[in-house]
Amino acid sequence: MKLKIALLAGDGIGPEVAAQAVTTLQAVEETFGHEFSFTEALVGAIAIDKQGDPLPDETLALCKESDAVLFGAIGHPKFDNDPTAKVRPEQGLLKLRKELGLFSNIRPVKIFPTLIEKSPLREERITGTDFVIYRELTGGIYFGEKFLSEDGTVASDLCIYSEEEISRIAHLAFKAAKGRRGKLTLVDKANVLESSRLWRKVVTRIGESYPEVTLDYLFVDNAAMQLILNPSQFDVILTENMFGDIISDEGSIIGGSIGLLPSASVGEDSSMFEPIHGSYPQATGKNIANPVASILSAAMLLDHFELKEEAEAVVRAVTLSLKKGIVTPDLDPNSKYGTDDVGHYIASNI
Amino acid sequence: MKLKIALLAGDGIGPEVAAQAVTTLQAVEETFGHEFSFTEALVGAIAIDKQGDPLPDETLALCKESDAVLFGAIGHPKFDNDPTAKVRPEQGLLKLRKELGLFSNIRPVKIFPTLIEKSPLREERITGTDFVIYRELTGGIYFGEKFLSEDGTVASDLCIYSEEEISRIAHLAFKAAKGRRGKLTLVDKANVLESSRLWRKVVTRIGESYPEVTLDYLFVDNAAMQLILNPSQFDVILTENMFGDIISDEGSIIGGSIGLLPSASVGEDSSMFEPIHGSYPQATGKNIANPVASILSAAMLLDHFELKEEAEAVVRAVTLSLKKGIVTPDLDPNSKYGTDDVGHYIASNI
Ligand SMILES: CC(C)[C@H](C(=O)O)[C@@H](O)C(=O)O
Ligand SMILES: CC(C)[C@H](C(=O)O)[C@@H](O)C(=O)O
Repeated sequence: MKLKIALLAGDGIGPEVAAQAVTTLQAVEETFGHEFSFTEALVGAIAIDKQGDPLPDETLALCKESDAVLFGAIGHPKFDNDPTAKVRPEQGLLKLRKELGLFSNIRPVKIFPTLIEKSPLREERITGTDFVIYRELTGGIYFGEKFLSEDGTVASDLCIYSEEEISRIAHLAFKAAKGRRGKLTLVDKANVLESSRLWRKVVTRIGESYPEVTLDYLFVDNAAMQLILNPSQFDVILTENMFGDIISDEGSIIGGSIGLLPSASVGEDSSMFEPIHGSYPQATGKNIANPVASILSAAMLLDHFELKEEAEAVVRAVTLSLKKGIVTPDLDPNSKYGTDDVGHYIASNI
Repeated sequence: MKLKIALLAGDGIGPEVAAQAVTTLQAVEETFGHEFSFTEALVGAIAIDKQGDPLPDETLALCKESDAVLFGAIGHPKFDNDPTAKVRPEQGLLKLRKELGLFSNIRPVKIFPTLIEKSPLREERITGTDFVIYRELTGGIYFGEKFLSEDGTVASDLCIYSEEEISRIAHLAFKAAKGRRGKLTLVDKANVLESSRLWRKVVTRIGESYPEVTLDYLFVDNAAMQLILNPSQFDVILTENMFGDIISDEGSIIGGSIGLLPSASVGEDSSMFEPIHGSYPQATGKNIANPVASILSAAMLLDHFELKEEAEAVVRAVTLSLKKGIVTPDLDPNSKYGTDDVGHYIASNI
């Protein structure tokens, strides 16, 4: 298969971990006889520094004409505590999601048995955890109208959803549940929010065409508890943008390291793959960042293009590296392996 | 001291646990020579069933003329999955908060050493946890304009905040931090939301008048992780209504049982005290619900009226009951003590 991949390494540790995803994909290319091309472009704080724009036009154009986007990380502390900053790295990411129509963010959470003692949760609570979150990514309060009064004393954000926006991701989530353990949990706040009641109505109706899938509902506050109390109860979680942001970061701690978790963002015509961790500025340039989340994102890319065997080969190589202790210091303080060692080990086992 | 207390027991286990809070307050009354009066009124599902209104006018009037409200729990499953229901129990609670101007919801999270093995988190992660959440309670997306298009295909909720709404609770939170370990963490989503940027601006400015307090900021997604990864880093957490709902329920699992956690909701002229757990319909009438959260809410009531010694006596009696194993079955599956046994034991030790 020929794939044209846009490489948006971004900020902080982004370039270091994305490089290992590329190494892995190149190993797949060779072993399985594919043709992947990689073209780099700027995004985030570095794009602001160099071009004054977190998502330059060339970057967007490249992404649109590529088959997939491989994304590193975004964000720099110098923007975080400045509520008056006109341009912020995150705007680049949000605009990219919107422009590419990436309405569905998919985040699998699984336990690697060798890492179980890394989890802040007791072992008996988390054994068997294996769920995937479908987070709506281009609607809701992220993209609704924003308002700041002229005197700067009143501000607002609108959380708005249409049936169409809910239904397209709901279908993806139901299909996923059908191919898994057949359970879908809608997380909302239907006891308070009008938009959540629309979610509940639309998802309930769509559920009727998936009789193999059991649908249940959790209020988001209760979901935030259940995720920690009993994570193995979940199979597929479906939720709106803001709740998904919170719940999926919370869920990321179950496995013991956010450095392991990949994500896919998909739409009609585009798809993007990125680790769920941030740009982790403190670790930048130290060759200590864990490349596994980025490499597993590459596996999700392969899977997205139906290269099942190839995706499995990557996951197998990652699992082997964890088992053999070829890991970065976040997983083993005594480890002498750097980001690139781990990446090369994984690539060499494809 | 004379206190006129409105007793809104509500639904499910509400009446059972609230009764034990009353027993405790009566013991305090006797031991310390106060005069507390209790007047009951309807709220929630039971008020809908009896009067078609989750917050009847008489109930609201009673609350307004009382010094404080003691609240049980609210909610019934028959309303939860019906997005079309015109009247819902939760509306009673939300209206009550708004009408009484209870803008600040205060939720302390502490570990009882005897219960540490009940926590889903590993012991070493949670030792030393002792924080309090200040959640804004009468603004934001809970109370902003709601919209549903005529054809029912588009729905929205507005998250809106004014400087005034932010500043009044911020002052309470800074004062609390000053009297504690001097750290305040603002939880927001200032990298995306205009309303969060207003929070950050206002809270930062107010912080300048509290030089003893160190102010820091966390994005809500990161906060949802940090709360589990390292809860002892927090002292006072300040946040808006919706984030507070999620974060505080999440935080409630740290101590091992949501059945232990009280809350206070305060405003200019009124105050309300309630367990943070819900109406727990499955346990209704079985005399198994844990009354401790409700009893500790009574302690917060005493504390609110500057009855420090009295409040401490209640906390001491609760701690003793936990230490002696006089607890409901949620904390000890072999326990033969019912809701009322635990309540009476605590009251008898005041
Ligand atoms: C960086 C930020 C805008 C982003 C979000 O909130 O969506 C991030 O937290 C994520 O989850 O991808
Ligand atoms: C019952 C519900 C409306 C309420 C809320 O969301 O505020 C509850 O979850 C709470 O936290 O007190």
